[in-house]
Amino acid sequence: MILRQLFDNETSAYTYVVADETTKKACIIDPVKNKTPHYIQILKELNVKLVLALDTHIHADHITGLGDLKMITGCKTMVGSLGDVSCASDSLQDGLVLTMGKLRIKVIYTPGHTADSYCFFINTETISYLFSGDTLLIRGTGRTDFQNGNPARLYESIHGKILKLPLDTILLPGHDYKGWTTSTLDEEKKHNPRLQFNKKSFIEFMNNLKLPDPKIMDVAVPLNLSCGGKNIN
Amino acid sequence: MILRQLFDNETSAYTYVVADETTKKACIIDPVKNKTPHYIQILKELNVKLVLALDTHIHADHITGLGDLKMITGCKTMVGSLGDVSCASDSLQDGLVLTMGKLRIKVIYTPGHTADSYCFFINTETISYLFSGDTLLIRGTGRTDFQNGNPARLYESIHGKILKLPLDTILLPGHDYKGWTTSTLDEEKKHNPRLQFNKKSFIEFMNNLKLPDPKIMDVAVPLNLSCGGKNIN
Repeated sequence: MILRQLFDNETSAYTYVVADETTKKACIIDPVKNKTPHYIQILKELNVKLVLALDTHIHADHITGLGDLKMITGCKTMVGSLGDVSCASDSLQDGLVLTMGKLRIKVIYTPGHTADSYCFFINTETISYLFSGDTLLIRGTGRTDFQNGNPARLYESIHGKILKLPLDTILLPGHDYKGWTTSTLDEEKKHNPRLQFNKKSFIEFMNNLKLPDPKIMDVAVPLNLSCGGKNIN
Repeated sequence: MILRQLFDNETSAYTYVVADETTKKACIIDPVKNKTPHYIQILKELNVKLVLALDTHIHADHITGLGDLKMITGCKTMVGSLGDVSCASDSLQDGLVLTMGKLRIKVIYTPGHTADSYCFFINTETISYLFSGDTLLIRGTGRTDFQNGNPARLYESIHGKILKLPLDTILLPGHDYKGWTTSTLDEEKKHNPRLQFNKKSFIEFMNNLKLPDPKIMDVAVPLNLSCGGKNIN
């Protein structure tokens, strides 16, 4: 399996390129529209063919590259069914398994940060990876105060689904604001401050964060509902 | 082997924490002074003991965390012998092998970016890693116009030493300014524009870059010669 983590400095967002070494089929997770030329370069240089572009959820802080990548490469695009994104080729569903050669990407529905949040789980012979979007971050979690976010559902998604996966799974989050690139589920279970709360305290904590809205939310969400404005240059 | 890559947003510098899983002995490569509390946190949470802190070279763009880490953890510190860093516990030498439990870190002298530049090579049973400092970057190289940098020597270090290592080695650089986190030697050999030059053209190219001096060079270099000003708060 080929794996590349890419960082967008402006929004502290992580994007992932994952490819099957045998068939050279590739998938991209959470691409950022402005970085599309980078993705095209790296796909070409890795000698892989993009067949699938996924968003873990409808982003509020950056504009998705799904539309541009679909237009340039002809890849399939998928987002959560609740996103109502008519420009996507297909909908993510809990339990769906996406195959690329020998690679199996298991789709796990993890609402809470938003109502349309999904995680992607890859279990190779030697190692497992969880692409967690903004559901679980390194020593943090996504916020729950817009886009039908819900702290009780986030708690259930993390404790009832994510922490039931093998704890040596490598965590590959959708953001990091302090420069950390990876973690493991075991590390987060033990050391993520938000995972130490019981459900009641977690809900209380999340409801009292009082964070400002993301700077470009009013632009990003509508554009992301059309895959990043694929007809807009 | 435990491996964590950490990014300093201000200087686009990468720092690495490497630890042996059995003995829990850890090493840190190119720590940034301002991030010391992060390193102390992650070492504690990974339940490993810092025994060694290494700089690939005397940095001109950020202040090293070697002095602070030595003071806080009692770890050994090592920098290149040409650095004339009296506060370091010991000097790096070409061919030296540093052991931490089962881990072997091979020191490779790679002058060119500076006269005191070293790379660190770890070859596990399944995978090899090169911590390349500023000698080889992803699709780039370090500059050669100060601190006794020399493009001919950089060319020799890259082509005569680094590219003689197994080409599937994972490249872990000292910086990246575009958000790429890792590469492989094979990728760089094929796609790094600066590695496509012959020696004469490379020297000409490097001598004509005309880059501005790093912003904090006049502060960073003297401080780094005292391990980041270990007696300065």
